[in-house]
Amino acid sequence: MLSPEIEPKAFRNLSYGLYIVTSRDEDRLNGQVVNTVIQVTSDPPRLAVIINKKNLTHEYISKSKVFGVSVLAESAPLTFFGPFGFSSGRDTDKLSKVQYKKGFNGCPLLTEHTLSVIEVEVSDQIDMGTHTIFVGPVVHSEVLTEGQPLTYHYYHEVMKGKTSKNAPTYTE
Amino acid sequence: MLSPEIEPKAFRNLSYGLYIVTSRDEDRLNGQVVNTVIQVTSDPPRLAVIINKKNLTHEYISKSKVFGVSVLAESAPLTFFGPFGFSSGRDTDKLSKVQYKKGFNGCPLLTEHTLSVIEVEVSDQIDMGTHTIFVGPVVHSEVLTEGQPLTYHYYHEVMKGKTSKNAPTYTE
Repeated sequence: MLSPEIEPKAFRNLSYGLYIVTSRDEDRLNGQVVNTVIQVTSDPPRLAVIINKKNLTHEYISKSKVFGVSVLAESAPLTFFGPFGFSSGRDTDKLSKVQYKKGFNGCPLLTEHTLSVIEVEVSDQIDMGTHTIFVGPVVHSEVLTEGQPLTYHYYHEVMKGKTSKNAPTYTE
Repeated sequence: MLSPEIEPKAFRNLSYGLYIVTSRDEDRLNGQVVNTVIQVTSDPPRLAVIINKKNLTHEYISKSKVFGVSVLAESAPLTFFGPFGFSSGRDTDKLSKVQYKKGFNGCPLLTEHTLSVIEVEVSDQIDMGTHTIFVGPVVHSEVLTEGQPLTYHYYHEVMKGKTSKNAPTYTE
């Protein structure tokens, strides 16, 4: 190529997991499917998550400065986690149909189809236009069960799942 | 559990790919293995990468404000990319033993064992103590060949690879 151009297909080779990221606004709880969760340091352990500003979970994390990550198992059925991705907590209580416990930071942590749970306190947030990167130290983490984590690749290739328009990795 | 505690094993269920991230200091080139590359927005496309401050690539990205990402193929042998992870560009010219081309931003982009290449201009950097998060818009991206991307999970479980002490995901 003689001049720079952007081929979005090139990003589709980036690898991700699939998670339910939750937060709260006082006693109101919500969560959503996220593929962009990443560890940023090991000493101390810190995580980053990227959330679309349109999402209710964004509003809750911005207010409460806490979030929870539930790492989905590969065996989690689409009927279980699909509603966390393709409906809004403004219209429906997403937590009403799943088993969860309250974390130490008050965020719901799933207890079914979940390998491990991680609680984070937000220390930094970086405005990225359509999305915000929330970063902070892990305050609690726990393995619930052994198993293979669900990957974004498995979700697309094997489960034939689609990408939400609000995802950082959405392409038309 | 009655009080919060951190079980590092809980983070090991987070999923990543495996990439060679490169940069330059004028004409000097370097690159390193990174698992923490992530897309943060789709409109415009922006990537984030997390790099240890001790690494020469960190020095180069900080100065030049550009980096390149080469997405490794699952078929890439350890002998090919291992030297990018377990040696420093201060001691050896890591690019001398591989095929690459210069990107539009001057960073080397691998042309063997690589599915796609992405060039980024850094617009923001966030200090995370031991590491820095570099974020910016994609200025060029290109698919080189079809294939399965190498994942961090495959590297650990199938190739029996180890984690560098400088990685954000290192645990003793």
